[in-house]
Amino acid sequence: MTNEPLNVLLLAGGVGGAKMAEGLQSNSNIMLTILGNIGDDDSFHGLWVSPDIDTMIYTLSEEINRKQGWGVREDDYKALSFLSKLGADTWMSLGDKDFGLHIYRTERLRRGDRASDITKDIAKAFGIEARIILPSDDIVQTKVLTDKGWLTFQEYFVKERCDPEVKEIKFEGLEVAKPTYEALDAISTADIILIAPSNPFVSISPILKIPGILEALKETSVKKLAVSPLINGKAVKGPAEKIMTSLGMQADAIGIASFYGDLIDTIIIDNVDSELSPKIRTLGIEVFCTDILMSNSSEKKRLAEEILFLAKNNNLPEGAKR
Amino acid sequence: MTNEPLNVLLLAGGVGGAKMAEGLQSNSNIMLTILGNIGDDDSFHGLWVSPDIDTMIYTLSEEINRKQGWGVREDDYKALSFLSKLGADTWMSLGDKDFGLHIYRTERLRRGDRASDITKDIAKAFGIEARIILPSDDIVQTKVLTDKGWLTFQEYFVKERCDPEVKEIKFEGLEVAKPTYEALDAISTADIILIAPSNPFVSISPILKIPGILEALKETSVKKLAVSPLINGKAVKGPAEKIMTSLGMQADAIGIASFYGDLIDTIIIDNVDSELSPKIRTLGIEVFCTDILMSNSSEKKRLAEEILFLAKNNNLPEGAKR
Repeated sequence: MTNEPLNVLLLAGGVGGAKMAEGLQSNSNIMLTILGNIGDDDSFHGLWVSPDIDTMIYTLSEEINRKQGWGVREDDYKALSFLSKLGADTWMSLGDKDFGLHIYRTERLRRGDRASDITKDIAKAFGIEARIILPSDDIVQTKVLTDKGWLTFQEYFVKERCDPEVKEIKFEGLEVAKPTYEALDAISTADIILIAPSNPFVSISPILKIPGILEALKETSVKKLAVSPLINGKAVKGPAEKIMTSLGMQADAIGIASFYGDLIDTIIIDNVDSELSPKIRTLGIEVFCTDILMSNSSEKKRLAEEILFLAKNNNLPEGAKR
Repeated sequence: MTNEPLNVLLLAGGVGGAKMAEGLQSNSNIMLTILGNIGDDDSFHGLWVSPDIDTMIYTLSEEINRKQGWGVREDDYKALSFLSKLGADTWMSLGDKDFGLHIYRTERLRRGDRASDITKDIAKAFGIEARIILPSDDIVQTKVLTDKGWLTFQEYFVKERCDPEVKEIKFEGLEVAKPTYEALDAISTADIILIAPSNPFVSISPILKIPGILEALKETSVKKLAVSPLINGKAVKGPAEKIMTSLGMQADAIGIASFYGDLIDTIIIDNVDSELSPKIRTLGIEVFCTDILMSNSSEKKRLAEEILFLAKNNNLPEGAKR
């Protein structure tokens, strides 16, 4: 390999994806492109909100509310207080600074600008060096079937706090959605493709299922790795294991590996799950174990470095946290 | 006269109109209807802002920032800070709570609701007992011709701080605007019609010029009074005298009386302008002098009481502040 920076493409959802992106962003030997999730997008009070993309932007620009993992630091809820006073349904927590971003995005969408271009401009304004790209400029929304009927993902996740059992997941709008040229180009020019420890069903699937994306991913022969979003059968954040159990799947790293199947050649799981490795290998997927929790910035950086080393050398570095 | 509450219709612009409305609102012997100004309305960041109507709502609900006379108390500018970071033009001061209201209004307008119904619901949510009605549900925008070309009123007033000389004023959209049935009904059922000490050219004119409004006002035979917005040739707030001078008019209570002409039968001017009374009477308009500054809530209340007494008795009360 040359000393040219490696093109790393990260498929990522919200909080977990943003942590992984942060670790990679700090590495000067790579060019990072993040293919984000638009399945959680929804309209609130007439404004278009893109929760996973926003979490990515706020995280990479250090505007993030670290305590929450989402939203903006030093934000307030004055706009929402007036909306509530006016009788609007305000279960979706939207801060004032956050509203500024949603107002900006919505105005540009109404003017006819592509969501991809708007995202690019927002990332630039926020001083983010990594490229954040979208799988599609069309609307593709994750819908979750529960006892309460079909819910948007935010209704299920925020309003219902993941309480109702998930019977089915669908991505509305897929049939007519077109992939962006940025996504297809990033896939075909990537040196490494990495799937972040995001929810495979509601964060990564809506990316993969955009017509043309999975095909493009399968066409490339570069190394494709995934980091498990489950540690000891539990999601670090969000409803992944709950959804897996509801859908009758095995809620552990084996279930994750089975789900991705031949899309990936390697999975990185946590040390605590090392006994699952033999079973995963029978699926034809290589397994490496390390500490994947990323509880602070040096952990994020360390994991990113280990993964990049692994991608180049087909093994974790000597000092990996085993 | 019976003891039935009097129907008082107040034609009002922003800050001065809201002060007058506040004084009247505190009077339990009347039913107050405010016919507000929509000429200052404009779109900011894709949201529809109605500055004069909002000032009225914030004032009558005591949400107003008393120090400014407009905007919301204990508000902040976090949304605007992100819009600014994103490169938006943020000369229009819009607070976070304020944004909540604009977001609400805009969403309902997009859904096809009438501006009148939205205003009614906002006033109700804010606990306002007076009726706030609009002259039209159509868009009628005040435009000001200056050296910098045609400006919207907010561009002239806020962005340019009333600095450029006004060469001409027009109200865009008048030709196709229809009056609301609420406005026509309020005019025909009013017992007293009062024009607030608002700018006649940019606050009251856009109301009067909506097709059908002036005609309806002229048809009624009830008492019609105006309170001068000028004291000693100066506007208490805003660019009234500047605009009058620019347009070659006499910038004093005589100019105001001439402007309204036979629309009103009585004008209330400040004690300091009492020497203008004879000249105003030659126009066929009755004049009464009192203290019209309204610098605090008891002053607002006192002026309202004096005007109501005057409307009933054709004279100011004995104790009027002469």
